[in-house]
Amino acid sequence: MLNFRTDLASERRDIYQKVQGTEGKLNGIESQKEQINEKLSVERVKITNEEGEKAIGKPKGIYTTIDIKNLKIAQEEEINKASEVLAKELGDIISMHIDKQGEILVVGLGNESVTPDALGPKTINEIEVTRHFINYMPQYVKEGTRMVSAISPGVLGTTGIETVEILKGVVQNINPKLVIVIDALASRSIERISSTIQISDTGIVPGAGVGNTRKEISQKTLGVPVIAIGIPTVVELATLVSEGIDIFIERLQEKAESNEYLNRLQQNDKYEEVKEALNIGEYNMIVTPKEIDGLIENMKEIVAQGINLAM
Amino acid sequence: MLNFRTDLASERRDIYQKVQGTEGKLNGIESQKEQINEKLSVERVKITNEEGEKAIGKPKGIYTTIDIKNLKIAQEEEINKASEVLAKELGDIISMHIDKQGEILVVGLGNESVTPDALGPKTINEIEVTRHFINYMPQYVKEGTRMVSAISPGVLGTTGIETVEILKGVVQNINPKLVIVIDALASRSIERISSTIQISDTGIVPGAGVGNTRKEISQKTLGVPVIAIGIPTVVELATLVSEGIDIFIERLQEKAESNEYLNRLQQNDKYEEVKEALNIGEYNMIVTPKEIDGLIENMKEIVAQGINLAM
Amino acid sequence: MLNFRTDLASERRDIYQKVQGTEGKLNGIESQKEQINEKLSVERVKITNEEGEKAIGKPKGIYTTIDIKNLKIAQEEEINKASEVLAKELGDIISMHIDKQGEILVVGLGNESVTPDALGPKTINEIEVTRHFINYMPQYVKEGTRMVSAISPGVLGTTGIETVEILKGVVQNINPKLVIVIDALASRSIERISSTIQISDTGIVPGAGVGNTRKEISQKTLGVPVIAIGIPTVVELATLVSEGIDIFIERLQEKAESNEYLNRLQQNDKYEEVKEALNIGEYNMIVTPKEIDGLIENMKEIVAQGINLAM
Amino acid sequence: MLNFRTDLASERRDIYQKVQGTEGKLNGIESQKEQINEKLSVERVKITNEEGEKAIGKPKGIYTTIDIKNLKIAQEEEINKASEVLAKELGDIISMHIDKQGEILVVGLGNESVTPDALGPKTINEIEVTRHFINYMPQYVKEGTRMVSAISPGVLGTTGIETVEILKGVVQNINPKLVIVIDALASRSIERISSTIQISDTGIVPGAGVGNTRKEISQKTLGVPVIAIGIPTVVELATLVSEGIDIFIERLQEKAESNEYLNRLQQNDKYEEVKEALNIGEYNMIVTPKEIDGLIENMKEIVAQGINLAM
Repeated sequence: MLNFRTDLASERRDIYQKVQGTEGKLNGIESQKEQINEKLSVERVKITNEEGEKAIGKPKGIYTTIDIKNLKIAQEEEINKASEVLAKELGDIISMHIDKQGEILVVGLGNESVTPDALGPKTINEIEVTRHFINYMPQYVKEGTRMVSAISPGVLGTTGIETVEILKGVVQNINPKLVIVIDALASRSIERISSTIQISDTGIVPGAGVGNTRKEISQKTLGVPVIAIGIPTVVELATLVSEGIDIFIERLQEKAESNEYLNRLQQNDKYEEVKEALNIGEYNMIVTPKEIDGLIENMKEIVAQGINLAM
Repeated sequence: MLNFRTDLASERRDIYQKVQGTEGKLNGIESQKEQINEKLSVERVKITNEEGEKAIGKPKGIYTTIDIKNLKIAQEEEINKASEVLAKELGDIISMHIDKQGEILVVGLGNESVTPDALGPKTINEIEVTRHFINYMPQYVKEGTRMVSAISPGVLGTTGIETVEILKGVVQNINPKLVIVIDALASRSIERISSTIQISDTGIVPGAGVGNTRKEISQKTLGVPVIAIGIPTVVELATLVSEGIDIFIERLQEKAESNEYLNRLQQNDKYEEVKEALNIGEYNMIVTPKEIDGLIENMKEIVAQGINLAM
Repeated sequence: MLNFRTDLASERRDIYQKVQGTEGKLNGIESQKEQINEKLSVERVKITNEEGEKAIGKPKGIYTTIDIKNLKIAQEEEINKASEVLAKELGDIISMHIDKQGEILVVGLGNESVTPDALGPKTINEIEVTRHFINYMPQYVKEGTRMVSAISPGVLGTTGIETVEILKGVVQNINPKLVIVIDALASRSIERISSTIQISDTGIVPGAGVGNTRKEISQKTLGVPVIAIGIPTVVELATLVSEGIDIFIERLQEKAESNEYLNRLQQNDKYEEVKEALNIGEYNMIVTPKEIDGLIENMKEIVAQGINLAM
Repeated sequence: MLNFRTDLASERRDIYQKVQGTEGKLNGIESQKEQINEKLSVERVKITNEEGEKAIGKPKGIYTTIDIKNLKIAQEEEINKASEVLAKELGDIISMHIDKQGEILVVGLGNESVTPDALGPKTINEIEVTRHFINYMPQYVKEGTRMVSAISPGVLGTTGIETVEILKGVVQNINPKLVIVIDALASRSIERISSTIQISDTGIVPGAGVGNTRKEISQKTLGVPVIAIGIPTVVELATLVSEGIDIFIERLQEKAESNEYLNRLQQNDKYEEVKEALNIGEYNMIVTPKEIDGLIENMKEIVAQGINLAM
């Protein structure tokens, strides 16, 4: 299998097609695009058989991608419109698996104190849970309300427990009919960062995008359908640099250039050319350790103590 | 002038020497290294004349760099030891400019709500200020205590005011004898992130490392000596990719390889090779927009609202 | 003068009237109420002469109070409606002092790391500043846009500098025509916490409500008109207990009860009666040191270290 | 049973003794005090039979209280000393229940985004977990290391799930030999806030102190011993006011005073007297809704939007 280094099915399909040189339809992979408005589009990819599974290394199921342009400067109405599109796509997938009143457990994966990994736990704080009202104050709840509960189980590094073990226990005790997991993903492309939402009904392998594979969270391990909502928040550095080098090698080959070209290239500042080639655009892209929040706490202590001592 | 894309004088000197092919001593630049212990080293660079200034594009003055290995897994004693080294170097530079009781204003530059830019404001919160005690409760303060005050002026993007304008006003009103500014810097090299501290007595141009030049904060603009403490927290992506490409071009040239080599290279996964070449080491380096904190707030709203609507 | 222990002019007037036994109109104090809708009302108090000043200990000027019911469970539309009312009242007061294009500096008082004192700095982060656009990129700004800048100067305890000294410096350097300061206030009544907004054009004395008087921030000290927006976020404990005791003394006197009554009272749990008398309502009122954020950081360290050592 | 409104066994015993007028030894309750140093003391209370249980409404078991004076201005060495005392007392209680290698699950109760309730989750972030190392990289772990895992399950209001249901599931899946829960408590006395640590081996009823009783977390519900570490972070307002009134009633009775006294009292500002009576000391005690963090977010939006609209 190719090493895709991305969690997005649509990116994987594109890479597969590029490598195979197949532009047209793939056996076992169906796609359909819809442009909602100038800023929002939806692509629904369906993997229908084993051939499709093998091609892009993802299990059979639905992979819907919502793309939002320029989220960076989002206005309230754009945020509302994007939520509505997500609600529709998510609602469609939920109703393929359970009925209108089937209880749902929403799970926010990730580490709240690591900025690019905090999306899951932060989202959980905003979910409107109803399970306890229905259990303890049924008289205040409109009939037919769906039971919803929500949990942020933490990450293996800080709990010492595989996330799937925690979730198995919770699912056994509260018996939801379906689980939704929210996770920050790695992507291959800078433009997708915080502007793409992937919804799939095949579960998730936490950390898969960055090579830290954890045990899978899916119907196989939890016993109920698992819908995963994934949002790219980072690109891994080495992936990006490899890609940058590929682009330059292509240019070298196109121009069939000799060592003179290489010499010239090295003397120029390739900076602007790279910026353009990597499609960095208006973003201010930085490279930083994932642990930067913690490192800054350490440094803060050193500098503050250092200054206090010097006085 | 070379485009150095780093704020560290010692990195600039190294780049300059590499480009010029001069290994030995440079006119106008003096250096001296000291290894404190296995994990801590200090390098004192002094720019002594205009030739030195021109060579590395930094004004005459002192540039001391403290390097800390493996800060990532720092224990309390290492943090304490590093603070002591910083206190000594900083104390030495302060005493070149003012006497033991000269009042000092400490300034934390940067934006507290942007993780890699938050170091300055976070440090300010820990500074032991004495100015108000000395003014309002002199009876409780040991005689000879230095007056210290501290401020986080914010950044142009959120205040609408050049930082130097704010500082000029404060300096005029409280009349310190010296200003210390703390700022997060950009560096060229991944290893320096949150493990190098540069102290210089020539002030600072906020945002200089990432190409967002703001007005300089220095004796020239504030009227009193300005000591800058800078800590690299990010590497700019395009800088890093350019460097990655340089490394590969060098290898290509060394091997005087033809297109066959390029073809082979493209088919391999260069991922591991790049990882090694860029010296990424045990860090989990990610690429992310500087604005990631804000983007995640937006996305959180979309996903939470989307789920709530779908239920 | 009475010791009002509140920053709200309308509370002071009520206390004054109660103590004086004057129910009707006061010389030097004009009031006018408007009920906007079921949840929102506005009261405009104007102190017109020295008699009014003396009565309630506030300088001549306008004191407008906006009351919002049940902010606790506010929906987006309610937040929007309240903003509009604030915008109208604030706009009216601004236009009494400067013209449509007069430059404004917005100041967020308070300490961002002390929860009930963080309102000012948090608000500043959301202000749309335009000053730097107008100065550096006038071509992108609609003609006639007002110059707005914003700053969070910190508090005396962490800066060592009187806030007014910082602001004087900034005002001298950037020359706004008007200053708006935002501050968390103390109130006497629990219901007002985070549900009342006072706008006045007479400036502010930071910390006045809780007895920590700092130097005044007003036209007298800054040289330009100062509009203060104050929101009660706390009630001081001793104030509240004094009030609770007053209520009980009143009841004692009404009933002209003897020691028998006192004896009985002491054996009952007065808890529910107190809850009702203090109008605590559905809130979960707690008493806590203002420094609770920092205390919890200390405790966290002790407990985590203690557990780690015990293992 | 008396309504104690405190989670601390030693406070309950004191109240019981006061109400009963029994100064000496109580049947079924053993106590022992130790003064560690000027700032630290330990009191070990043991409830040995049903009579003791009934007297103070707590189950049979050990209740150790560590008191720390002036934590507010704690230095690092004091924090370290307090951790050591906690480690010793906790270690003693652990070793009464399991052997040196018995696996432990540490649980942080409470809501991280509500300041006075955040202690549990914040502490969890600092626990050194070993379970995953022992499972996945046993070669790097010293033999005999105890397996430790840690989890913050959230609160019923945001998860919709009883905490005990989550914990039951986790315990069933990972099978620890003992559970330690950390929780913020309510106390009756202001001095105890963030300066007392209670360790007991009888589990916990979350929210018991503030009248929000949740299902108990104990050996009965989890099947393994449960040690609870509780730290008071708040006093409930109505409790405190009731107490304030009690104090005044006592004074009234002592003085056998008539209505004249009451009249005089009402004309004075009782403020300072109350402050002294409640033992508020150097703290800056405030009264605020538990939900203040969320209320301030709402208010911030209203004020920022209001100002932006007014410009």
